[in-house]
Amino acid sequence: MALVACSQFTPVLGAVRENVQHSLRLVREAAAQGATVIVLPELASSGYVFADAAEAAGASEAPDGFAVTAWQEAATELGVVIVAGFAETNPDGAPFNSAALVMPDGEPVIYRKAHLWDRERLIFTPGDDLPPVVDTPAGRIGVMICYDLEFPEWVRIAALEGAELICAPVNWPSVPRPAGERPGEVMRVQAGASMNRVAIAACDRSGRERGVEWSSASVIVDADGWPLALTEHASNIRRAPASSTGGEVGADRDDQAVTILAEIDLAASRTKRIAEYSDVFADRREDLYSRYAR
Amino acid sequence: MALVACSQFTPVLGAVRENVQHSLRLVREAAAQGATVIVLPELASSGYVFADAAEAAGASEAPDGFAVTAWQEAATELGVVIVAGFAETNPDGAPFNSAALVMPDGEPVIYRKAHLWDRERLIFTPGDDLPPVVDTPAGRIGVMICYDLEFPEWVRIAALEGAELICAPVNWPSVPRPAGERPGEVMRVQAGASMNRVAIAACDRSGRERGVEWSSASVIVDADGWPLALTEHASNIRRAPASSTGGEVGADRDDQAVTILAEIDLAASRTKRIAEYSDVFADRREDLYSRYAR
Repeated sequence: MALVACSQFTPVLGAVRENVQHSLRLVREAAAQGATVIVLPELASSGYVFADAAEAAGASEAPDGFAVTAWQEAATELGVVIVAGFAETNPDGAPFNSAALVMPDGEPVIYRKAHLWDRERLIFTPGDDLPPVVDTPAGRIGVMICYDLEFPEWVRIAALEGAELICAPVNWPSVPRPAGERPGEVMRVQAGASMNRVAIAACDRSGRERGVEWSSASVIVDADGWPLALTEHASNIRRAPASSTGGEVGADRDDQAVTILAEIDLAASRTKRIAEYSDVFADRREDLYSRYAR
Repeated sequence: MALVACSQFTPVLGAVRENVQHSLRLVREAAAQGATVIVLPELASSGYVFADAAEAAGASEAPDGFAVTAWQEAATELGVVIVAGFAETNPDGAPFNSAALVMPDGEPVIYRKAHLWDRERLIFTPGDDLPPVVDTPAGRIGVMICYDLEFPEWVRIAALEGAELICAPVNWPSVPRPAGERPGEVMRVQAGASMNRVAIAACDRSGRERGVEWSSASVIVDADGWPLALTEHASNIRRAPASSTGGEVGADRDDQAVTILAEIDLAASRTKRIAEYSDVFADRREDLYSRYAR
């Protein structure tokens, strides 16, 4: 069993030290509650809505910079695994949209987002490596970032590599959805988990930045795809309009940091069996998939 | 636009003529309501819970048998596309769990289920072909069956082949799920649709057979993955216990046939763009997926 936390907050654009200090307070709080795996948002150290690559570069750091070093030190001190997003300096051009996995007595594992969302391709350089899947004291953990989750190939690869838990820093933009529905990204996380029998913890951000509003929809699902913990904004319950503004339903978003916690049986991810004869991996028809090439 | 119907009913095990006649009545009713694509359940002609391959063979037919011929004639007479499941005779051994797509003035297109669920592998021979994707008067339609939908590779292949709509005869067994959740299969259909921007119509069966109970959870979702029509059993609203039995919530299932109908904008499936710069196909990192082989 692992107690997994997603610590959702609102980074301040460009304020790396301030954001990292904020994240460290949340990490300490989650650890104090017993969490052994703590996920922070995508680009937690830097914020998101950069005007261009140069501005993003100004908020980027190498993996031995302030952010990852601080998270590494906290992981060692607290005995926890932390997965957090940061803007990574790229000596050859636009920065990477990266995530660091840090754990006690280990080197940081860095992943660079391979599937860049929308305007990110104008700001960042895409990664060219598969998602890392690493053994940690809390279990075998895969790392990917936000839009990566929307590609079933990516979740499949991490699961086939043995990930028991995928930790995904995300920044899900808030878009309209039908009444009674969870955000589409949450539904796709549920499906990806259940089709691969892997738990997934996705930590969203909150707040607004230069006109962009985020979903504040952090969610932790088990290997059956059922939510173990989710924020109010990740649920299928549509909030009433804010009476003070008369604005659209759900148009207001909390800037308050919120941590969701869930105890996950990671051993459940190690069996892919879902019926007497059925196994979600053994039943794959790789012989046929490989026949399809375009 | 296409008006798509799923005509959910309870086949009688082994009663091929009776089942096909029942299905034809439902097809006529749906066509009378304006449906141009009508999906029937998996193994609609034969029922499901066979003791062994020999019993299944006794309820199987060749594609020129009574079932597919009757559906073909109805399609021609009514000017509709029908996708329906049947047990297909296999001269070389155990029958196939197949589906026929029939349309006016065409030859039946036969698909043999490639991913056999649980005990089906003791009863049926798996198919060895990719899912068909065919141009019909109602749009470009892909065909797969039940458990096939749980393999993101399969939905992806049909979508990459240009399917605007996937028609899937299913027999989803009823299993427990948390309160407030749709059946897991429905959630995975939603995700598969949205990640590929393809509409999906899944026609379930109802009733019980030799101790097995089905979900009665037919659903039609659009290319964003949102349900356009779904049965009560496919919804996230848990029904109250049947007062007459005091049994478990949701334990009773309708044996009544029910047809759900939805108008689908199939043109929406032809654009894969989901943001100014994002396109769910163009954003795939096939260069990286192909690097992963095991």
